[in-house]
Amino acid sequence: MRQSQLFTKTRKEAPHDEISKNARLLIRAGFVHKELAGVYAYLPLGLMVIEKIKQIVREEMNVVGGQEIAMAAIQRKELWEMTDRWDDTNVDVWFKSTLKNGTEIGLGWSHEEPITDMMKNFVSSYRDLPIFVYQFQTKFRNELRAKSGIMRGREFLMKDMYSYTIDEAQHQKFYDSTIQAYLKIFRRVGLGDDTFVTFASGGAFTQFSHEFQTISDAGEDSIYIHKEKNIAINKEVMSDTVLADLGVTIDELVEVKTAEVGNIFNFGTIKSTQLDFKYINEAGEKIPVFLGSYGIGITRLMGVIVERFSDEKGIMWPKSIAPFHVHLVSLCSDVTDIKKADNIYQKMLDKGIEVLYDDRADRIEVLYDDRADLRPGEKFADSDLIGIPKRIIVSPKTLAQDSVEVKMRNGNNIEMVTLKNISYK
Amino acid sequence: MRQSQLFTKTRKEAPHDEISKNARLLIRAGFVHKELAGVYAYLPLGLMVIEKIKQIVREEMNVVGGQEIAMAAIQRKELWEMTDRWDDTNVDVWFKSTLKNGTEIGLGWSHEEPITDMMKNFVSSYRDLPIFVYQFQTKFRNELRAKSGIMRGREFLMKDMYSYTIDEAQHQKFYDSTIQAYLKIFRRVGLGDDTFVTFASGGAFTQFSHEFQTISDAGEDSIYIHKEKNIAINKEVMSDTVLADLGVTIDELVEVKTAEVGNIFNFGTIKSTQLDFKYINEAGEKIPVFLGSYGIGITRLMGVIVERFSDEKGIMWPKSIAPFHVHLVSLCSDVTDIKKADNIYQKMLDKGIEVLYDDRADRIEVLYDDRADLRPGEKFADSDLIGIPKRIIVSPKTLAQDSVEVKMRNGNNIEMVTLKNISYK
Repeated sequence: MRQSQLFTKTRKEAPHDEISKNARLLIRAGFVHKELAGVYAYLPLGLMVIEKIKQIVREEMNVVGGQEIAMAAIQRKELWEMTDRWDDTNVDVWFKSTLKNGTEIGLGWSHEEPITDMMKNFVSSYRDLPIFVYQFQTKFRNELRAKSGIMRGREFLMKDMYSYTIDEAQHQKFYDSTIQAYLKIFRRVGLGDDTFVTFASGGAFTQFSHEFQTISDAGEDSIYIHKEKNIAINKEVMSDTVLADLGVTIDELVEVKTAEVGNIFNFGTIKSTQLDFKYINEAGEKIPVFLGSYGIGITRLMGVIVERFSDEKGIMWPKSIAPFHVHLVSLCSDVTDIKKADNIYQKMLDKGIEVLYDDRADRIEVLYDDRADLRPGEKFADSDLIGIPKRIIVSPKTLAQDSVEVKMRNGNNIEMVTLKNISYK
Repeated sequence: MRQSQLFTKTRKEAPHDEISKNARLLIRAGFVHKELAGVYAYLPLGLMVIEKIKQIVREEMNVVGGQEIAMAAIQRKELWEMTDRWDDTNVDVWFKSTLKNGTEIGLGWSHEEPITDMMKNFVSSYRDLPIFVYQFQTKFRNELRAKSGIMRGREFLMKDMYSYTIDEAQHQKFYDSTIQAYLKIFRRVGLGDDTFVTFASGGAFTQFSHEFQTISDAGEDSIYIHKEKNIAINKEVMSDTVLADLGVTIDELVEVKTAEVGNIFNFGTIKSTQLDFKYINEAGEKIPVFLGSYGIGITRLMGVIVERFSDEKGIMWPKSIAPFHVHLVSLCSDVTDIKKADNIYQKMLDKGIEVLYDDRADRIEVLYDDRADLRPGEKFADSDLIGIPKRIIVSPKTLAQDSVEVKMRNGNNIEMVTLKNISYK
């Protein structure tokens, strides 16, 4: 894409009321727009990142057998009353509104109830199970405060998956495969080394649930880590009993600040009993379906990534989710040089590039800074702020040597590469 | 995809309170689930159709220079007060709710106001214009009645595009290119012959706006058509003056019932004046930006397509938006035959098929009805209901002749094709 065509511009300053690092950088770089506290719009560069994260998550959810659906945001009061989660004293994040006929409705802050109720149409026998469904859904949560940028929104994008199984054994098998899928997702988006499967509060049905916690100064959680044994415990559940159960001592653990990037939860048969969702087993008995839920906040994850991969100059996107692979920055101003720069851009689009981008990709995505009337310093500052992983500079100086300069966003080394050494695929 | 893995099932009956043909068929075939009147969830088959429609629309919006963004559903009261559209007496479809601190918010039924306000961050000079942005956004409209299935939702998916230009001439150029893009979209989804660019009420700024109206018994509009001159006039604006302006007489026109599938609208400088969105022109003067808006209801369009392409047996999807290209229906029950059917399925996935599907596609998408214990009649009824354009039947009878049977959903002819004549790409 030609940067001269991109309608967004970088900004020197973020809004004064925006205190979170992730949102300040994303607003300044033109990825998001703040509508109000906890409510953000996603601009072209931001939407590209979101779509890449979604695609990685989608691929891994499909691997474990998930089928993608899209539920509605508007939800029926009566379903949530059946599980005692409609009342504001039990769930304090509802946005509610009213139909013209006076019927109260809620905006989905989660979807266990409507999805489980819907499944009654499709499940009668054990032969219909297991079922795994997931969606990317805008969630609405009426948070009292929203000061963490896109890490905690009043409106945000979530991937939520639900598993319906015949019993705990079938559930556990899927639960375990989802842990692996989640770990793969966090590796693919660049957070593998910093993310831990963490023992957390299990609610009514099980002793523990599992959270996926990523080390982050912007996080709201604290966990204890045992690096060698790869054990992590949320501070909320830490006790002598837990330590004994897990076979570790407090001295072996290190406390770190983290952000929750995913959670998986075993609902057992509680919710299906409340909602009367049963199936007939092989013996002909009516049995409540076993339910699990599995969440990843997509916009939250993007925020955590920005917190983790940024410096004083701007963002440093991991390649897998960067809006573009290459930032081709032209410092050319005379017609002949501009034509040469255009030509390099066109070849990248047509054929991809191998030498300039080590790992092969089917398609090389290039943002081409073809803007006129900007000083080199301004272009480099914009490029650092936007944070595309590889920068290729074409200037009168490099063209005089039939070359371009190559620099990684996360490095200082500048390498000259001659044009004929660029192997276009 | 193996149909045995698809969690949805077809149903003999739709819910009793569902009176619209499109929703009855889509629910029975397992494409959508009704949450409440005017609120639907999209199941795997339904989401596949939605994504295909979105991709066609996206491609054509990109051709005219649109940049994709995603605004928020939660909207600020003060913006809509500036344009006098917050009060329920002026706009009667608002869903409203309240933040914890008492601030009223609205759920977006349209997005002109927040997008225009946001653009102030990116436009100061004529050099920053034109800008064309679009999004696929869930809209919320508190309709008094919702009886048209997915054609008129309380919650629905819309593509809305907005153009920001320096003056009427620049606006008109884009407006005209969008008319062509819209016509191309409706051709690509199969509605080309039935869709008319229609003169409709222009509001305060212009004499006319343009609607795209598709002939449909389920529609809520009436238009007059002059086939030879390709002129269509919404009944709402029909008058002697309009007839004279367009150079036609009433006898030359035919009245038809239609559904609005798209509209494009010239806001002029009204809204930018109200919201104080100005730019500096070449002469150094501050001038309000010229605004246009361009909508296509994505879920509505899907509903109109179902109304248009269906018969008493079910849906007949146009190939461009069908959830799958081919429905491979196996009637095999013994192990050797099942293995042969599996093999045909696998080859379709691996290599595509040319002979069996005339127009080439990069990838052939196949739904493979591998379900056991169903009678042929049940499988054919399901296949007719779901409406995939091409059905390929593999049975002991066809395998005995090293063949498959091929039948189009919208035809009666059954053709035998020998397996060795299937040319796998």
